[in-house]
Amino acid sequence: MRAIFNEELQQVADDLIAMASAVHIAVDRAGQALFSQDIETAQDVIDGDKAIDALEHKINDQCVTLLAKQSPVATDLRIVVSTMSIASLLERMGDLARHIAETSRSTYPDSPFVPRIADTFTRMQSFALTTTQTLTNLVKSHDEDAAQQLIINDDVMDKLFESVVSSARNDDWDATTEQIINTVLLSRYYERMGDHAVSVARRLVYMVSGFDPTKDPSRFIGVDGDGD
Amino acid sequence: MRAIFNEELQQVADDLIAMASAVHIAVDRAGQALFSQDIETAQDVIDGDKAIDALEHKINDQCVTLLAKQSPVATDLRIVVSTMSIASLLERMGDLARHIAETSRSTYPDSPFVPRIADTFTRMQSFALTTTQTLTNLVKSHDEDAAQQLIINDDVMDKLFESVVSSARNDDWDATTEQIINTVLLSRYYERMGDHAVSVARRLVYMVSGFDPTKDPSRFIGVDGDGD
Repeated sequence: MRAIFNEELQQVADDLIAMASAVHIAVDRAGQALFSQDIETAQDVIDGDKAIDALEHKINDQCVTLLAKQSPVATDLRIVVSTMSIASLLERMGDLARHIAETSRSTYPDSPFVPRIADTFTRMQSFALTTTQTLTNLVKSHDEDAAQQLIINDDVMDKLFESVVSSARNDDWDATTEQIINTVLLSRYYERMGDHAVSVARRLVYMVSGFDPTKDPSRFIGVDGDGD
Repeated sequence: MRAIFNEELQQVADDLIAMASAVHIAVDRAGQALFSQDIETAQDVIDGDKAIDALEHKINDQCVTLLAKQSPVATDLRIVVSTMSIASLLERMGDLARHIAETSRSTYPDSPFVPRIADTFTRMQSFALTTTQTLTNLVKSHDEDAAQQLIINDDVMDKLFESVVSSARNDDWDATTEQIINTVLLSRYYERMGDHAVSVARRLVYMVSGFDPTKDPSRFIGVDGDGD
């Protein structure tokens, strides 16, 4: 029974790693679509989101089957429950990569964002790319320290988002309303991606330690809420 | 054992109803804050979000305990797993109500949005209010038909959001960049709230029927994706 459980759990774990990796690739391509106005790559990201959604469904089914057949407890139970949460968060990160690609496509061949914000978007993209690579490693390694490091960095995206809003207030953007809207939405997509990545890291800490860092933020530096 | 399980499950169910009701109240008050520039109500919504978050944590803990101690299967298992998902979605809906209140507070005593969009926001608020009331009833009644009706209405918020973006493109808004940004963000918050409400309804259908309407959308009219 234990051998079967471990085998089935490994299958779910492999699918979760595949899902994190697919999200990382989607983020990479969405950035390419955004910065190079590469409409074919944008379309690939949009079309590819279905495969990420399908992985979430598969993982959920596997987890419910594991719960029903194996009745796991303690760490095993935490792994199964956390895997469902993490899959749901990764699915939303995939959606956000798709939204970035859709926004790029919507203004093709023009860039969707206000040119003077380009540097901020470059930093957001770079952070999203590093973060999704870290998540892919984390769902493999279950490295609690690395997860906590990601949680500590949780406000990088928020600060970049705030800098966009602040720049819009204080600088002369010399932009169309459509550019302003796309700039705000794109920066919001990146910010949400950062929030979801932190939530994944928190679930991983819970999975490994049984401790939920959202409940007693004082135990962790830089944990101050749930985003939305 | 069964009696204890039912008692514990009822406790979780009561907490989920309390959570849905709290979200409905938060949405109502966020609207009041937004339309009347009522800063005290805005602050109440912002402060009150912690109680919604706490309910999610409590529900999650109860569900994990139920899984560990009672090893539910079939419908019982679906109820426990779906309850965790629904609590997570309601928590985000609470966050979105908080974001609406925060946006209202940020421009006090001025209204945060572009005046000519007021009518769209009135409709978004009205829809969000009806929807959260429906959700509160749904988590009580588990009425599959009512859940499917909510799924069918899934594009109302999307269409309102698109009308904001389209108006920004085509009409002369005569607005500041800050107003444009707040208008876009507010309409995005409402749109996300609608998406989450639909996801709750889908989880309820799954809970009652064992059928996941995200997997075979053709079985349902008006189901076309996952939002983000």
